[in-house]
Amino acid sequence: ADIVVLPGDGIGPEVTAAAVAVLQAAGRRYGHTFRFETRLIGGAAIDAEGAPLSDATLDACRKADAILLGAVGGPKWSDGEIRPEQGLLKLRKALGLYANLRPVRTHPVALTASPIKSHLLTGVDMIVVRELTGGVYFGRRTRTDIAASDLCEYTVAEIERVVRRACTLARGRRKFVVSVDKANVLETSRLWRQVATRVARDEFPDVRLEHQLVDSMAMHLIAKPREYDVIVTENMFGDILTDEASMLAGSMGLLPSASLGEGRGGVYEPIHGSAPDIAGRGIANPCGAILSAAMLLRHSLGLDAEARCIEKAVADAIDGGALTADLALTGIAARPPLGTDAMA
Amino acid sequence: ADIVVLPGDGIGPEVTAAAVAVLQAAGRRYGHTFRFETRLIGGAAIDAEGAPLSDATLDACRKADAILLGAVGGPKWSDGEIRPEQGLLKLRKALGLYANLRPVRTHPVALTASPIKSHLLTGVDMIVVRELTGGVYFGRRTRTDIAASDLCEYTVAEIERVVRRACTLARGRRKFVVSVDKANVLETSRLWRQVATRVARDEFPDVRLEHQLVDSMAMHLIAKPREYDVIVTENMFGDILTDEASMLAGSMGLLPSASLGEGRGGVYEPIHGSAPDIAGRGIANPCGAILSAAMLLRHSLGLDAEARCIEKAVADAIDGGALTADLALTGIAARPPLGTDAMA
Ligand SMILES: CC(C)[C@H](C(=O)O)[C@@H](O)C(=O)O
Ligand SMILES: CC(C)[C@H](C(=O)O)[C@@H](O)C(=O)O
Repeated sequence: ADIVVLPGDGIGPEVTAAAVAVLQAAGRRYGHTFRFETRLIGGAAIDAEGAPLSDATLDACRKADAILLGAVGGPKWSDGEIRPEQGLLKLRKALGLYANLRPVRTHPVALTASPIKSHLLTGVDMIVVRELTGGVYFGRRTRTDIAASDLCEYTVAEIERVVRRACTLARGRRKFVVSVDKANVLETSRLWRQVATRVARDEFPDVRLEHQLVDSMAMHLIAKPREYDVIVTENMFGDILTDEASMLAGSMGLLPSASLGEGRGGVYEPIHGSAPDIAGRGIANPCGAILSAAMLLRHSLGLDAEARCIEKAVADAIDGGALTADLALTGIAARPPLGTDAMA
Repeated sequence: ADIVVLPGDGIGPEVTAAAVAVLQAAGRRYGHTFRFETRLIGGAAIDAEGAPLSDATLDACRKADAILLGAVGGPKWSDGEIRPEQGLLKLRKALGLYANLRPVRTHPVALTASPIKSHLLTGVDMIVVRELTGGVYFGRRTRTDIAASDLCEYTVAEIERVVRRACTLARGRRKFVVSVDKANVLETSRLWRQVATRVARDEFPDVRLEHQLVDSMAMHLIAKPREYDVIVTENMFGDILTDEASMLAGSMGLLPSASLGEGRGGVYEPIHGSAPDIAGRGIANPCGAILSAAMLLRHSLGLDAEARCIEKAVADAIDGGALTADLALTGIAARPPLGTDAMA
């Protein structure tokens, strides 16, 4: 299989290197050959190629079986006309990766690191399906001297396909989907709610669908996290809620994501950002990237046993007290925290 | 002073009645006469007057010194063309109430009720200033058979005035403002960040301003809540973050808000909603409404001592174990929970 690696900025290169090492180990153990091609994205690509995602890189991504990504962005590029994030948004849009899957599970040892009370966390196992190629992220923008605007748009087809993906996922789980919107204010949300209701009723009679307003959801997510199974929502709400949900796991350094479209390809990336403050020091938590690599094996290469093997290795390591600084700082570990490579 | 009371829907009438009783008690103690005029808003107004906010009611609101509001909305009206929320949005817009102040403090006794670990909560004292008359709440909406859109717009002047309000508030506190946006994606957010930076630098050199992306903020808010003093953000982000922040206080039933414009008038309302599931049972927590009444005395009537007296009474009552069902359910209280009137 051909995998394009886009390390990106900040800690991106460190965590993707760790994930590649794990993929190689899985390949050796199970007898697969993965071919890796490393390319630039984000600030690194702006510096070297003048654009956050070059045509050549996009082309390589189109041809690959899957893409493993680190993170983009950093203070160096945040004031420019061309910004690192544009590379990531362009990649998602160009490959039609409309469904961003962000699973959140709690590891017993990491409970101490979460700001949420431990008794609420045991057994949390949810997956947020965030719409990724629509909404205010991709609407027309205007800017004058005295005003600015962003347009949030959704079509019926865009809502249908992501709700279908969420309901399909729920079938393999607890058959419960919560759709999040702001239907008491937004027109796009009223359309979202109608379409979600129809798709669930007509195509997934075995799946229970509930609606929540995004403001209430921001509370319930931390007040009763165990109740949730699959959560589906639009792009911007998903961005906010998944970062909030990451606090349930103790550290966002632990959390992977998969961005999927209609085909088998996809972009796999940890949900943490480029963390410029700790970049280059070899202390970043590689688990988010490693678990993203596991999702890559499952969703793009159909290697489920291999994916589960990696997931079990990560869970066992953490439960056994192997902790990077983001988790060890909370005072669980007597030992000094592990660096990125040691953890990997 | 003339106060218009808009009880609204669900538990709105119960909690505003409790707050009016407290205002009357404060009036007796300090020798003020408050004249109350009760009018309809939301679903109650739709049912009785055919519109969620009649012209006569809006007129009365314009003439009053301040407005005390309960809550609007409920399943009965959620599918109609005319919705209860439109009354609230119209009121905010018509009176130019661009700054929504939502203070969050933690009461020692309520720590048990919060999903957040107690050691993170002691000493939390923040105030969120949410822009209330702009953004995607008031932009042009479109709807066709196959698509919908909402427009998010901000002008420089809209951003300036709410940032000024936040910085002015910070001067009387810890002189620290965090401005929240999504400047790595949205044009309105880039404008927001520029204007906030300029206003703080030119007009408030004594106030420290930091910027946070809304997704990161959704994490930091619960991971290190003590660090925050004043948070300023646009309408939709403020809606989500203030509900999330309410979890710090243990119950959103405790939290008040003030919506202010250029003049002295304002709308004061608890941040909880209409809670149709417990409406009419006399068990709703009136503290959010009572503390909103205290904010009314302070901001619209200039009665600061009276406001502090009410705030102290609420804090003392809670610390002394007077708990409504939303707090008592967590198992702190051995006694049966207090009803709305008993709590008031
Ligand atoms: C970097 C940024 C554009 C991106 C987003 O908002 O989608 C990030 O926050 C994420 O969640 O993947
Ligand atoms: C009722 C609704 C329109 C309102 C809002 O979103 O502003 C409410 O959630 C609030 O926060 O006051």
